[in-house]
Amino acid sequence: MKTARIEANGQAQDVTVAANGKLLLPNGKAFEGQEWNWLPPPHAVIYGLALNFADHARELNFAELPEEPIPFIKNPSSVVGHLAPVARPAGVRYMHYEGELGVVIGKAARNVKRDKAMEHVRGYTICNDFTVRDFVGNFYRPPIKAKGFDTFGPVGPWIVDAADIPDPHQLSIQTRVNGELRQDGNTRDLIFDIPALIEWFSQFMTLAPGAIISTGTPRGLSDVQPGDTVEVRIDGIGSLVNTVVSA
Amino acid sequence: MKTARIEANGQAQDVTVAANGKLLLPNGKAFEGQEWNWLPPPHAVIYGLALNFADHARELNFAELPEEPIPFIKNPSSVVGHLAPVARPAGVRYMHYEGELGVVIGKAARNVKRDKAMEHVRGYTICNDFTVRDFVGNFYRPPIKAKGFDTFGPVGPWIVDAADIPDPHQLSIQTRVNGELRQDGNTRDLIFDIPALIEWFSQFMTLAPGAIISTGTPRGLSDVQPGDTVEVRIDGIGSLVNTVVSA
Repeated sequence: MKTARIEANGQAQDVTVAANGKLLLPNGKAFEGQEWNWLPPPHAVIYGLALNFADHARELNFAELPEEPIPFIKNPSSVVGHLAPVARPAGVRYMHYEGELGVVIGKAARNVKRDKAMEHVRGYTICNDFTVRDFVGNFYRPPIKAKGFDTFGPVGPWIVDAADIPDPHQLSIQTRVNGELRQDGNTRDLIFDIPALIEWFSQFMTLAPGAIISTGTPRGLSDVQPGDTVEVRIDGIGSLVNTVVSA
Repeated sequence: MKTARIEANGQAQDVTVAANGKLLLPNGKAFEGQEWNWLPPPHAVIYGLALNFADHARELNFAELPEEPIPFIKNPSSVVGHLAPVARPAGVRYMHYEGELGVVIGKAARNVKRDKAMEHVRGYTICNDFTVRDFVGNFYRPPIKAKGFDTFGPVGPWIVDAADIPDPHQLSIQTRVNGELRQDGNTRDLIFDIPALIEWFSQFMTLAPGAIISTGTPRGLSDVQPGDTVEVRIDGIGSLVNTVVSA
């Protein structure tokens, strides 16, 4: 099942997305509106991962792979939905997308070992971790200003139930800019896989229901400019599309 | 006026705190319960600041003061309320408190200049930014694991309206461990004052209503151990008390 949150006529609503693409309200009736906005999951806290694909780490000239996950918190005020415009700040040199699989926590996880970790996953979504490279400075600690600009955190368009994804470690992740393929990765190449990430985070903190682990991006970053349309497509999940505009 | 959020009999409630300390419900009636827990503000996103007091920067042997604010996002799953226990993780060497003034945003701030900044402040609260020094690594980029353990973010006990604080840059901040004075600072010594912080953050992101800027800590850090009670007291705001326990 695919679940989403939309906004229509100023009202937020939870919907499910039927196989034919129709939106269904919680009472089972079809949503009849012609226009709506896709919202990100409510109060989503996104935990991002730096350098979690070997090919991307090599692209950044890292000789050694990280020994433990390198997490950061995506600024909550940067989070937007599918089709939302993403604003390129004035005066920056290099702004790029990062297409990523988002793991949505269903059941609170604290001190969970890897063999039980997948029981805590509700489902999967798509994240695009936009970044201004000018401000990164230290790859191990991306600062708020590199990844936290308003609109830099598209998520969506929906959450696909875990039961519908037989193997989340065999998913193609492709990012296209204006239709041209730029990232072509697969979640089989995650350095820290999903159970490892849940075990690691939950050693010191609670992964609360609704928390999203954005599992890192494969190689293939490039600058995007106002007017560019960025699409992140993940097998069996869907396609997250956002267009870059001038701030 | 002082406003707070409490939990009693499993139910969260918004209250105001009268001058005599009594809790009043939104309908004006007194809260009659004998037992309650103080909750942190709901969905509070806490933006912390590293090195925002010169005396503290010197204590850490920084020769030069930062040229711009050094922000981080406090892990939302670390946030707890007044009187909540704070768990010292097993096996760490040095865990310390950081008593701080919390500035609570009332009206969304984006591209706000310093002369208009204070119009966006709803009020003030107290934050304690607990940290495991073992994991800090880089003071400019404190990682989630240094400051994001469950229970490491006490906030409260309440929010005092901005109108009741004539000058938020003349407030004594004192932290006591088991009654012994350890930090004795004043918000007049902030390197980046409140309007500067609001201007700086709002240049690239929206400070949403409910967001809290935890403005940094003065000198006087020291290790705390299970059994220690830590009290942060700020003039005109109140006293945030938490006891350290074993994880």
